[in-house]
Amino acid sequence: MPSQLNPASGFEKLRRIESSKVFQGAVITIIILSALTIGAKTYDLPPLVEKSLIVMDNAITLFFLLEILFRFGVCANKKRFLFDGWNLFDTLVVIGSLIPLDNSEAVLLGRLLRVFRVLRLVSVVPELRFLINSLLKAIPRMGYIALLMFIIFYIYAAMGSMFFASVDEELWGDVAIAMLTLFRVATFEDWTDVMYATMEQYPLSWVFYITFIFLTAFVFLNMMIGAILEVMSEEQNAKQAQKAHDERDEIARQLQAVQVQLAELTKQISEKR
Amino acid sequence: MPSQLNPASGFEKLRRIESSKVFQGAVITIIILSALTIGAKTYDLPPLVEKSLIVMDNAITLFFLLEILFRFGVCANKKRFLFDGWNLFDTLVVIGSLIPLDNSEAVLLGRLLRVFRVLRLVSVVPELRFLINSLLKAIPRMGYIALLMFIIFYIYAAMGSMFFASVDEELWGDVAIAMLTLFRVATFEDWTDVMYATMEQYPLSWVFYITFIFLTAFVFLNMMIGAILEVMSEEQNAKQAQKAHDERDEIARQLQAVQVQLAELTKQISEKR
Amino acid sequence: MPSQLNPASGFEKLRRIESSKVFQGAVITIIILSALTIGAKTYDLPPLVEKSLIVMDNAITLFFLLEILFRFGVCANKKRFLFDGWNLFDTLVVIGSLIPLDNSEAVLLGRLLRVFRVLRLVSVVPELRFLINSLLKAIPRMGYIALLMFIIFYIYAAMGSMFFASVDEELWGDVAIAMLTLFRVATFEDWTDVMYATMEQYPLSWVFYITFIFLTAFVFLNMMIGAILEVMSEEQNAKQAQKAHDERDEIARQLQAVQVQLAELTKQISEKR
Amino acid sequence: MPSQLNPASGFEKLRRIESSKVFQGAVITIIILSALTIGAKTYDLPPLVEKSLIVMDNAITLFFLLEILFRFGVCANKKRFLFDGWNLFDTLVVIGSLIPLDNSEAVLLGRLLRVFRVLRLVSVVPELRFLINSLLKAIPRMGYIALLMFIIFYIYAAMGSMFFASVDEELWGDVAIAMLTLFRVATFEDWTDVMYATMEQYPLSWVFYITFIFLTAFVFLNMMIGAILEVMSEEQNAKQAQKAHDERDEIARQLQAVQVQLAELTKQISEKR
Repeated sequence: MPSQLNPASGFEKLRRIESSKVFQGAVITIIILSALTIGAKTYDLPPLVEKSLIVMDNAITLFFLLEILFRFGVCANKKRFLFDGWNLFDTLVVIGSLIPLDNSEAVLLGRLLRVFRVLRLVSVVPELRFLINSLLKAIPRMGYIALLMFIIFYIYAAMGSMFFASVDEELWGDVAIAMLTLFRVATFEDWTDVMYATMEQYPLSWVFYITFIFLTAFVFLNMMIGAILEVMSEEQNAKQAQKAHDERDEIARQLQAVQVQLAELTKQISEKR
Repeated sequence: MPSQLNPASGFEKLRRIESSKVFQGAVITIIILSALTIGAKTYDLPPLVEKSLIVMDNAITLFFLLEILFRFGVCANKKRFLFDGWNLFDTLVVIGSLIPLDNSEAVLLGRLLRVFRVLRLVSVVPELRFLINSLLKAIPRMGYIALLMFIIFYIYAAMGSMFFASVDEELWGDVAIAMLTLFRVATFEDWTDVMYATMEQYPLSWVFYITFIFLTAFVFLNMMIGAILEVMSEEQNAKQAQKAHDERDEIARQLQAVQVQLAELTKQISEKR
Repeated sequence: MPSQLNPASGFEKLRRIESSKVFQGAVITIIILSALTIGAKTYDLPPLVEKSLIVMDNAITLFFLLEILFRFGVCANKKRFLFDGWNLFDTLVVIGSLIPLDNSEAVLLGRLLRVFRVLRLVSVVPELRFLINSLLKAIPRMGYIALLMFIIFYIYAAMGSMFFASVDEELWGDVAIAMLTLFRVATFEDWTDVMYATMEQYPLSWVFYITFIFLTAFVFLNMMIGAILEVMSEEQNAKQAQKAHDERDEIARQLQAVQVQLAELTKQISEKR
Repeated sequence: MPSQLNPASGFEKLRRIESSKVFQGAVITIIILSALTIGAKTYDLPPLVEKSLIVMDNAITLFFLLEILFRFGVCANKKRFLFDGWNLFDTLVVIGSLIPLDNSEAVLLGRLLRVFRVLRLVSVVPELRFLINSLLKAIPRMGYIALLMFIIFYIYAAMGSMFFASVDEELWGDVAIAMLTLFRVATFEDWTDVMYATMEQYPLSWVFYITFIFLTAFVFLNMMIGAILEVMSEEQNAKQAQKAHDERDEIARQLQAVQVQLAELTKQISEKR
C-alpha cells in the first residue's frame, strides 16, 4: 500500500500499536510499578522518597488516562467499547485515581481507589480475564446454594440470639452479630469456647452447634463439589461425546448408502427377469 | 366457555390464581417479611415498634393460615395433599405458629416455632426444593459411612474416657463428653491443648490423637468425596451413554435391514437360476 | 426330604440357622448391648448396677464364644474359615475378652480389649465390611503419597529441630517432637503462635512455615483427590465403556455376516455366468 | 560373546550392576541410614555415639560421591546425564555434603545441606519420581491461579495496612506483614481475634474479613479442584475414548469394504446384461 497519508491506514497503524506485544508489556509494567508504589507507601519512608513517590503516582495516573483515551480513540465501535465490562472497569478505576492525594479529607478514599489499579492487571492479562470469566459463569449456579446457606444461617442466628443473648451479649446480642458468630463457628475458629460458654447455662446446647456444623460444613461442601463437578464434566465430556456422535452419524450415513446400493441392485435384477 | 357461574370453572379459576406468579410472589414476600420480623425482635426496640411487630406477626400467622387452607381447598386430590412432605411441613409450621405469644410460659416455644416459618421459603421456591430433594437422596448412601464414623468415635471415646478421665474430668469424664471432645479434635479446634494435657501423664498418647485424626479427617473425607462423585457421574454420564446406546441401536437396526435385503436378493437370484 | 435324622441334613439345618436373619439380628443386638455396657462403665454407677454390668459382660463374652464356635463348627471348609481376615479378627477379639476383669493388674487391658468388641459390628454388617474392604484397596495406591509426605515432614522436622531447638525445647527439641509440631502446623492448629515465637529469633522463619504449609496442605490435598478420582472413575466408567464396546462388537459381527452374505451372492452370480 | 576382556562388554557389565536391584537397594539403604544419622543428631547423645556418627557421616558422603561418579562413568551419553534434572539434583546435594562439619562457621550450612540428602530417596525410587513429575506438570496450569491469588492478597494487604496499621502495628504494619496476617486469616487461624481487634475501631471491618475469606478460601478451592479434575479426566477418558474411536473406525472400514463389494457385484450384473 503506497499511500501512508491515508487516514484509515494511519488508524490501522495505531491499532496495530495497541495490540502489539510491546504496548501490552509497557502497560503491564506500569501496572506493576503502580502496585509497588502502593505497597511502598505502607512503609515509613524518608521525605525525599515519599515526594518522588507522589510524582511517580501522578505520572502513572497520567499514563493510565492517556492509555484509556488512546484505546477508546483507536476502538472502531465506540459504543461497544463502553458496554464491555472490562473497559468500563478500567475507566472507572482511572477516573477514581484522578482524586488528588493532597486534600486531607479525601486522601484515604484516593489511596483506596489507587489500590484497585492493581486489579487492572486482571483486565489486561488475557489468562486472568479468562479465569475471572469462568468464575463469574459459575455464580448463578451457586446462587441458590448460597441462598439456602443464608436461610440456615438466619434460622440458627435467630435461635441463637433468642436463647444465648443472656449468656454473651457480645456474641449473640442480635441476629446480625449472631450470624457473624456462626460464621466463626463454621470456620471452626475457637467454636468450642463459644459452645462451652453456652453449655454452662443450657447443657444441651451442643446439639445446636453440632447440627449447625453438620448442616453447613458438610452439606455445603457436598453441594459445592457437586456444582463444580457438574460444570467441569459437562464442558469436558461434551467434546468427546460430540466426536463420538459424529462418527456414529458417519457410520449411519454409510449404511444408508449401502441400502440404496442394494435397492438399486435388486431393481436391476428384477428388471432383468 | 360461556357460563362463568359453573362451579368447576370457578374452581379452575382459583387454581389458576394459586399457580400464578403474582400469588407465589406474594407468599414469598410475606415469608421474607416474617423472617425480618423474627430478626427485628432480637434487637432492643421502642415499645411502639414492638407492639406493631406483634400485630404484624398475628397478621402473618393469619395470612399463612388462610394460604394453606386456600391451597388445601384448591387441591383436587385432598389425600395426596397431606401425604406430600412439603405440604405437611407447611401445615405443621403454620399450626405451630398458632401458639399465642402473650402466654409467658410458651413464649419461647412460640417464638422458636415462628423461626421455622423462614424454612417455608424452601418449600415455596422450587429451586430450593430441588436442592433439598437431591440432598435427601444422598442420605441413605451416606448412612453406612456415618455409622462407621460413629463406631470409630465410640471406640475412641470409650478408650479416651477409660484412660484420660483422671487427666481432665471436663473433657473425658464419660463416653458422651469424650465423643464431644473427639468431635472437637476432628475439627482441629485446639486439639493440641487436649493432647499436650494428656501427654503429661501418658507420653505416648499422641498416637491416640494422630491415629484418630487420620481415621476420621482423611478416611472420612475420601469416602465422602467418593460417594459424591458416584452420585454425580452416574446421573451425568447416564444421559450421554443412553444417547450413544440409542444411536448404536439404530445402526444395528439398519444393519439388520441390510441383511434382510441381501437375503431377499439372494433368494431372487437363486430362484432365477 | 423325608429323613430328618440324617446328620448331613441336620448340618444343613444348622447352617440355615447361621445365615438366617434372626440369628444375624441376635448377634448385632448383642454387639450393640456390649457397646452400651462399655459406654455405661465410663459413668459413675451405683454398686448394684455395676455388679449387674459385670454379670452381663460375662454373659456377652460367653455368647460371643459360643457364637464363634458355632460358626466354626458349621463352616464347611475349616481351613478357609481361619484364613478369612474377618473371622480371624472376630476370633482374636473374643479370645481377648476372656481376660478376667477382677484381676486388678490386667483390668485396663481387659477393658481395652472389650472395647474392640464394638468393631465386630463391622465384621457382621456386610455393608460396613464392603466399605472397609474398598478402603483397604485404596491403601497401596496411597502408600507412595504417604511416603513422600513422610519425607517432607522428616526434612522439615530435621531443619526445625536444627534451628529452633534453642527457641522452644518443648516444640522443637528433637526430630520426633518436631514432627508432631509440624503435624500441628499442618492442621493449622495455633500455627501462628509457633511461627511468631521463632520469628523473634529468626525473622525470616515464616518462609519455613509458609513453604511447609503449601507443600503439605495443598500438594497433599491435590494428590489425594487425584488418587480418589482415579479409583472412582476407573470403576465407574468401566461398566459403561464395556457395554458400549459390546454393542460395537455386535455391530462389527453383523457387518461380517453381511460381508459373508455378499461374498456368497457374488459367487452365485459369477457361477451363473 | 566369548571375550570377557573386551572393554565394551566390561562397560556393559558395570551398567548391568548399576541397574541391578541389589545396587538400587544398597543406595536406598544408605540414604535411609543417612536420614537416621541426621535425625539422631537432633538428640543429646553421649560423646562416643556422636563421634561415631561423624565417622558414619563421612562414610556416607564418600559412598554418595563414589556412587554419583560411578553412575556418571557408566552413563553412555555424558551430556544428557548432566541435563537430566534428577542427576543434577543428586550431584548438587552430594557436592553440598562435602562442606566439612568441623568448621564452626559453616557447620549449620553443612548440616542443612546434609538434610537434603534425604530427598535423594525421591530421585532414586521411581514411583516417587513419577509422583513429583506429575506434580510439576500441574504447576504451569496453576500458575495463573496463584497469580490471581497473589493479586487478591496484595490488594487486601494494601487496604489492611492502610486502615488497620494504627490498630495493631505488629499485624498490619506494612504490606508484607499484612500479607502474612492475611495468610493466617486464610487458614482460619485465630482470625476472629484479628477481626474483633479492628472492629473496635472500624465496626464494619468484618466486611473486609468475610469478603476476603470468601474470595480466597472458597474461590481458590473451586479453581484448584477444577484444575485437578481437568488434568485427571483428560488423561483418564483419553484412553477409553481412543479405544472407542478405533472400534468405530474399524466398523467404518468394514462398511466401506461392503460398499466396494456391492459396487463390484452391481458391475458384474450390469455387464452380464
